[in-house]
Amino acid sequence: MTTIARPLPKYLVQRYHGWRATTFTENRAWYHRLAEEGQRPRAMMISCCDSRVHVSGIFGADSGEFFIHRNIANLVPPFQPDGQQHGTSAALEFAVTSLKVAHLIIMGHTKCGGVAGCHAMCAGHAPELDEKTSFVGRWMDILRPGYDRVKDLPEDQQVSALEREAVLVSLENLMTFPFVRAAVESGELSLHGMVHNISDGTLVQVDGAGAFSEV
Amino acid sequence: MTTIARPLPKYLVQRYHGWRATTFTENRAWYHRLAEEGQRPRAMMISCCDSRVHVSGIFGADSGEFFIHRNIANLVPPFQPDGQQHGTSAALEFAVTSLKVAHLIIMGHTKCGGVAGCHAMCAGHAPELDEKTSFVGRWMDILRPGYDRVKDLPEDQQVSALEREAVLVSLENLMTFPFVRAAVESGELSLHGMVHNISDGTLVQVDGAGAFSEV
Amino acid sequence: MTTIARPLPKYLVQRYHGWRATTFTENRAWYHRLAEEGQRPRAMMISCCDSRVHVSGIFGADSGEFFIHRNIANLVPPFQPDGQQHGTSAALEFAVTSLKVAHLIIMGHTKCGGVAGCHAMCAGHAPELDEKTSFVGRWMDILRPGYDRVKDLPEDQQVSALEREAVLVSLENLMTFPFVRAAVESGELSLHGMVHNISDGTLVQVDGAGAFSEV
Amino acid sequence: MTTIARPLPKYLVQRYHGWRATTFTENRAWYHRLAEEGQRPRAMMISCCDSRVHVSGIFGADSGEFFIHRNIANLVPPFQPDGQQHGTSAALEFAVTSLKVAHLIIMGHTKCGGVAGCHAMCAGHAPELDEKTSFVGRWMDILRPGYDRVKDLPEDQQVSALEREAVLVSLENLMTFPFVRAAVESGELSLHGMVHNISDGTLVQVDGAGAFSEV
Repeated sequence: MTTIARPLPKYLVQRYHGWRATTFTENRAWYHRLAEEGQRPRAMMISCCDSRVHVSGIFGADSGEFFIHRNIANLVPPFQPDGQQHGTSAALEFAVTSLKVAHLIIMGHTKCGGVAGCHAMCAGHAPELDEKTSFVGRWMDILRPGYDRVKDLPEDQQVSALEREAVLVSLENLMTFPFVRAAVESGELSLHGMVHNISDGTLVQVDGAGAFSEV
Repeated sequence: MTTIARPLPKYLVQRYHGWRATTFTENRAWYHRLAEEGQRPRAMMISCCDSRVHVSGIFGADSGEFFIHRNIANLVPPFQPDGQQHGTSAALEFAVTSLKVAHLIIMGHTKCGGVAGCHAMCAGHAPELDEKTSFVGRWMDILRPGYDRVKDLPEDQQVSALEREAVLVSLENLMTFPFVRAAVESGELSLHGMVHNISDGTLVQVDGAGAFSEV
Repeated sequence: MTTIARPLPKYLVQRYHGWRATTFTENRAWYHRLAEEGQRPRAMMISCCDSRVHVSGIFGADSGEFFIHRNIANLVPPFQPDGQQHGTSAALEFAVTSLKVAHLIIMGHTKCGGVAGCHAMCAGHAPELDEKTSFVGRWMDILRPGYDRVKDLPEDQQVSALEREAVLVSLENLMTFPFVRAAVESGELSLHGMVHNISDGTLVQVDGAGAFSEV
Repeated sequence: MTTIARPLPKYLVQRYHGWRATTFTENRAWYHRLAEEGQRPRAMMISCCDSRVHVSGIFGADSGEFFIHRNIANLVPPFQPDGQQHGTSAALEFAVTSLKVAHLIIMGHTKCGGVAGCHAMCAGHAPELDEKTSFVGRWMDILRPGYDRVKDLPEDQQVSALEREAVLVSLENLMTFPFVRAAVESGELSLHGMVHNISDGTLVQVDGAGAFSEV
């Protein structure tokens, strides 16, 4: 068969060989054991695809620590068992029911392109996202309930409020999954929500009353 | 409003403060500029949620370099503009049409739980994954065409062949997206497919003839 | 000379730098003084090597507070002044006669692999631990007198009873050390025994009648 | 039966209740899972009982990460399968053969009372440690080969050189254990040696040539 695939760019090949000769070699024993015995991550992280957000770095995580799903705007859609393909729900199901992670952390961030697009779309400034054919627009529909809660704030506060809503809405949607709710209620799983400010490096987390404060 | 959210575990709080006092502080200027000017990643990576796979580490990537989507088994579903929520397609659309990444890399890996589950399901050994309500099962349906190509191999070669199929099927599906095909044909985007062996750290990549060889 | 030593894994290097830039820096004065004036811990803790037991965490201990010896199953062997190497006895001697700690706390825990191994060995189910060459088996011999006291209990109560015996036997053995007995009798040292339930976080302590109750 | 045990001091009871209401509660899910599934630490740490040394803090370790043995001066005695009780050898055997840790880290420190005592004893200034009945003296005999390598250095450099020897001698002794040597040679285990300066918080590690440099 033929494929469209091209060789990896040279600078990436070079870095990979460097990684293998250093980091991999130094941790060969641990990587080998992780491969043989299987992963056993303590937490699932749901964060954005954005190239400026790296939860492994922020939390000094070693290989094997976090099961990480990354999508646009770190969103969790509601439970929808319709037999269709739901990548986020599949990742959730695997993490909670098979891996039995103890923590599930929604990691939002400032300056999120997805959230900004959602705001523009909901405010009527981005009709192209409203098209049925816009995958980004349809994905960001998940955050519409959040827009309704921020649209009466002063204009210049709405987008950052919506970034927090991306976390709050996802936390709400998480609890619509029966296996998440059951694990939370039995004490086997705890949920956490936070927003990372990519400009100044700070982290705020949400408490039980829906308020955010610095970690 | 109330939320189900709990405070972040203390060891993560401690590590975050450590990160902020060192890595963040040392790179403050770059992070600040990335935040102000927006991201401009050179590549999109599609890799698995598995806690043992970290493309940033393997490729020594700095903040801002890779736009990373992670889902179960690093799969890309076919183009399906049905107005439903497609997280992977949304990430693709954003990376290719808005960020205009130059490379799109599908990063598979060995010992993939999702691929093993798909194999069991297709071989008839995991009826629970065949249920309409199994999110993992429905997600792994994307890989069924790959199973059909490996099912006549010797039993003990099928799963690792299917791990490679997860990359090949995704490369094929990528080309069903008009915006991907257009960017590839105009030379603005190149596609790459590889499988990372998490036991011995090696990397193989697929060439235009569909064959895999060591990088 | 050559050594077999390898560089520290990178994620630990990163975390160490984070610790030094935060916790260490914030407590620099206290650490400096502790280093210059010497330690003066108020208690010695004897606990298990098990990665799930951390007395510093449970008791909110600051640097300098506890002198901590950790071995398999938190055992104290009997006084045996035979000129051989006794790591636990050396730690005891240093804590009681040089540091003059005021409290000596034996901290047992549930789900102890060492205790389970001892039970299997004494019950005849782990002949490999009975070999002269098994370091774990010989070490767990210290707990044999405890096994004799639990072996007539119902089968399913024996292991957890033996976890408590690991504390009781150690308390008994402590009193065979002349310097411990002297310090206890003069009122300069008090002994304490407890078992930490690592599942539910509770702590039980033994009283003068040998009964355990919640702290 | 009667015991000599006394109730836990009130301030410790109070802190324990605080820990249980906060840290434990917030991590209930993870602690519960660790208890049910068993520990799977990635590294064994051998460090000193000294109250000023806490590897969990320095390395931001979570519960379940490190299997920790602590004895006077972080020493490993040579392999001695004589059927006697060897607490350190038992901990080693359990970590390497049962838990199959990937890293084994000897963590020395400055201002070590045990090392200072060893120096005094070997230099003839502490005859009481030379007594057959001194547990500390007999334990520190393990470090005598190190003293022979530092005794011709200028007087004021000997003790700190001996602190590094405590790490080097232990690394050498580790390799006398057949199960350690086998795991190192098969690539399943890597050894690491370092000395923590408790005054200024720095860490030095030894390389393959026996030289120490800052981490």
